[in-house]
Amino acid sequence: MDKKIAVYRKEHFNAAHRLHNPLLSAEENQEVYGKCNRPNYHGHNYELTVKLTGAVDERTGYVMDTKRLSDIIRIHILDVFDHNNLNLDVPALSGINPTTENVAIAIYNILRPHIENRLELKIILHETERNFVEYPA
Amino acid sequence: MDKKIAVYRKEHFNAAHRLHNPLLSAEENQEVYGKCNRPNYHGHNYELTVKLTGAVDERTGYVMDTKRLSDIIRIHILDVFDHNNLNLDVPALSGINPTTENVAIAIYNILRPHIENRLELKIILHETERNFVEYPA
Amino acid sequence: MDKKIAVYRKEHFNAAHRLHNPLLSAEENQEVYGKCNRPNYHGHNYELTVKLTGAVDERTGYVMDTKRLSDIIRIHILDVFDHNNLNLDVPALSGINPTTENVAIAIYNILRPHIENRLELKIILHETERNFVEYPA
Amino acid sequence: MDKKIAVYRKEHFNAAHRLHNPLLSAEENQEVYGKCNRPNYHGHNYELTVKLTGAVDERTGYVMDTKRLSDIIRIHILDVFDHNNLNLDVPALSGINPTTENVAIAIYNILRPHIENRLELKIILHETERNFVEYPA
Amino acid sequence: MDKKIAVYRKEHFNAAHRLHNPLLSAEENQEVYGKCNRPNYHGHNYELTVKLTGAVDERTGYVMDTKRLSDIIRIHILDVFDHNNLNLDVPALSGINPTTENVAIAIYNILRPHIENRLELKIILHETERNFVEYPA
Amino acid sequence: MDKKIAVYRKEHFNAAHRLHNPLLSAEENQEVYGKCNRPNYHGHNYELTVKLTGAVDERTGYVMDTKRLSDIIRIHILDVFDHNNLNLDVPALSGINPTTENVAIAIYNILRPHIENRLELKIILHETERNFVEYPA
Repeated sequence: MDKKIAVYRKEHFNAAHRLHNPLLSAEENQEVYGKCNRPNYHGHNYELTVKLTGAVDERTGYVMDTKRLSDIIRIHILDVFDHNNLNLDVPALSGINPTTENVAIAIYNILRPHIENRLELKIILHETERNFVEYPA
Repeated sequence: MDKKIAVYRKEHFNAAHRLHNPLLSAEENQEVYGKCNRPNYHGHNYELTVKLTGAVDERTGYVMDTKRLSDIIRIHILDVFDHNNLNLDVPALSGINPTTENVAIAIYNILRPHIENRLELKIILHETERNFVEYPA
Repeated sequence: MDKKIAVYRKEHFNAAHRLHNPLLSAEENQEVYGKCNRPNYHGHNYELTVKLTGAVDERTGYVMDTKRLSDIIRIHILDVFDHNNLNLDVPALSGINPTTENVAIAIYNILRPHIENRLELKIILHETERNFVEYPA
Repeated sequence: MDKKIAVYRKEHFNAAHRLHNPLLSAEENQEVYGKCNRPNYHGHNYELTVKLTGAVDERTGYVMDTKRLSDIIRIHILDVFDHNNLNLDVPALSGINPTTENVAIAIYNILRPHIENRLELKIILHETERNFVEYPA
Repeated sequence: MDKKIAVYRKEHFNAAHRLHNPLLSAEENQEVYGKCNRPNYHGHNYELTVKLTGAVDERTGYVMDTKRLSDIIRIHILDVFDHNNLNLDVPALSGINPTTENVAIAIYNILRPHIENRLELKIILHETERNFVEYPA
Repeated sequence: MDKKIAVYRKEHFNAAHRLHNPLLSAEENQEVYGKCNRPNYHGHNYELTVKLTGAVDERTGYVMDTKRLSDIIRIHILDVFDHNNLNLDVPALSGINPTTENVAIAIYNILRPHIENRLELKIILHETERNFVEYPA
C-alpha cells in the first residue's frame, strides 16, 4: 500500500472574541463586522478538527496515534484558547483580528512545528455549525 | 382528540459570559467556577429550545404557529442576547450570575408574558453539546 | 426493579406536503400558513422517534425488542408515508391538514393498536431540526 | 501568508421533487428511480453548504464576509428553491431531472456569476443525512 | 423561584457486548437477539446523559456543578465501562444480560449513592443514534 | 458539463475490536495502544461514508444510483463487518491490526472491484465522532 491516508482528530474550546480592525474607523468597523464588532465581546463553542495526511506506520497501524495528537492539541491549543478571550488572552493572536480565518491560520502555525515533517497538516475550524474554514485549502 | 401535544422551536445565539458571584471572595469564585471565572470572559453557541404544551387549534392545526413563536423569541431573546455579553449587556441578567440555569430561568421569565396562558412553557438551553438545562423540570 | 423505563426507536421518512385548510379562504390560508401553503407542495426529511414506556421483560431484558418495533413502524408508517405526498397519498391523513401536530397524532393512532396495551406510547416527530412535536405531551 | 484558505457557509431549504426522465418509458423510470419516481412528489430538508477558496483579505481578515455570502445564497437560491417544488417552480431546473447531482450543478451555475472571480466555488448538497454530493469534485 | 430545574451532562464510552440469556437455549437466544447474540461480541459508542433535577443553589447558581458531576461519572462509570467488555469486565453487570435497558439501570444504581438525595436522578443511554433508553421513565 | 462531481453514501455498522500487534511484546502493545489493547475487546458504532467521483450519467442524472451503491456496501461490507468482531470474524482483516486506518484500507480494497473503473473511490470511516480517517487522501 503506497497511497496516502488522512487521519482526523476533533477537539473543541469555548472562547470570547470580537472582530475589530484598529486601522479602520469605528464606522468602518461597524460596517464591516456588524454585531460581531460589539465592544463587550460575544463567544463561540469552537470545534477544531486537525487533519494529518501521510503513510501508515507499519508497526502501529496508525498515521499518528490520535491520543498523542490529542495531547499536542490540548497542550498547545486548548490550554491556551479554551475559556479565554481571543482578543486579550492568546499570545499567538496578539494584534490579530480573530476572524475564523485568522484563528485557524494561527492554530496551524502553532501546531506545525509539533507535527512530524512527513505529515501534511490541515486545520478545520467551526465557529458555528454554519460557519467554518479550512486551512490550507 | 383531547390529549395535549407539545411543539418545540429551536433557535440559537452566540454570547460571552463569565461565572462570578460578587458575594464570594476571589479564591472562592476560583474554587467554585474554575476556568469559567476567568476575568476576560469566554463564550458559547447557545442552543435555545422553547417547548409549548397545549391543545391543537382546530382552525390552524397548530398548537401555535412556530413562525410566530420564532418571531417572539427573536424580538425578546435573540435581539437582546445574541452577540452580546451576558454579564454586561442583558438587562434581565443584571446582577445575576449567568450560569446556564440562571440564563434559562431569565429566558422563561421574559417569554412567559408573551405566550398565551393556555400554553405550558418550558425552556431547554444548551451551553455546549454536553451541558444543558431544562426549566421548569 | 419496579421503576418503569422508556425505550426509543428513531426512524425517518421523506415526504411532500402543503398546509391548507379548505374551510378557510385563499387569503386566510396564505395569512396562516405563508409559504407552507404554496400549491405545488414542498417537503421534508421527517425524523420519527417512537417512545415506549413500561417494565423490562425479565426473559429478554427488553421493554420491547426494538427490531420488532422497527418492523411495526416500517410496515404501518414508513411503507405508507415514505416517498409519498401527505396530502394525497396517505389514507390516515385524508381530509386532514398535515401540520406536524396532525401528522404525529395520525401516527400515534395508527401505531397504538399494534403496541401492547401494557406499554405507554409517545410520538416525537421532527419536521426539521428546528421544528418538532411530541404527542401526547 | 500565501496559502489559500476555504470558508464554508451552510444554509438549508425544504422542497418537493420527484425523479423522472421524460425520455424514458414509465417502466424505465420506475426501474431507475423506484419510489423516487412516484407521481405526487416527496420532499427533503436540503442542507446546502457553499465553499469559497481564496486568499484572506488583509483589511477584513475574511476570505469573504459570510454574512454577505449568506445574503447572496438567500436571494438567488433560498428565495427560489425553499418551500417550492423543484420540478415545477424553479426556472433554473426547468426540463432538468432534479437529482441531487443536477440540483447542485444548477446551484453552482446560479451562484458563480455572483461570486468574485478570484474565489473558487464549490457546492455541497445534502438531500438526506446519508446522501449528498459535491460539485465540482 | 421555587420551580425545579434539570441539568444534563453528556459523556460517552466505547464498549463491546453481546446479548445472551443463559437460561434460554442457543436457538431461543438466536431467535430473541439475532445478530446481537453472535459469540465474539460487537460493540458501540455509548452516549450517556445524566439528568439531575432539583433546586438551584443560590450560592453557586448551579443545580450541581457539572464539572463535579462529570468527575463522578468518570470515576464510577467511564473508568469501569469504557474500552471494556460489558459481559466480562464490568462487576455491576456480572450475570446481567447487557441490553441497553439493563446497562442504564446498572448505571443508575451505581450513581445514585454518589448524588445528593435532594436531587432526582435520571439516566438516558444511547446505544446507537437510533436506539436509546431513559431510566426511570 | 464536463466538470466531475462526487456522490457520497453514508452507512454504519457496529463492531468489536482490540488493537494488538503480535510482533510487539505485551508491554509494547500496552504502551502503543493503551486501553485499546485490553484483551476482551471494546467496540464502536462505525460510520462509513463512501465517496464516488465521476461524470453524471445523462440518462439517469446520477453519478451512480446511491440505492445500488448502498446494496453493494451492504452485501460486501455490512453483512460481513456489522455485529461482528473485527479481529476474529472478518476474513479481509485476518492477521491485520484493526486500526481505523487499516479497516478503511480493507474496505477500499473490498469495494474497489465492485465499483465501475470510471469512478474514483474514497472511503471515510468514523470510529467515533472525534476520530476518523479518509483513504486514499
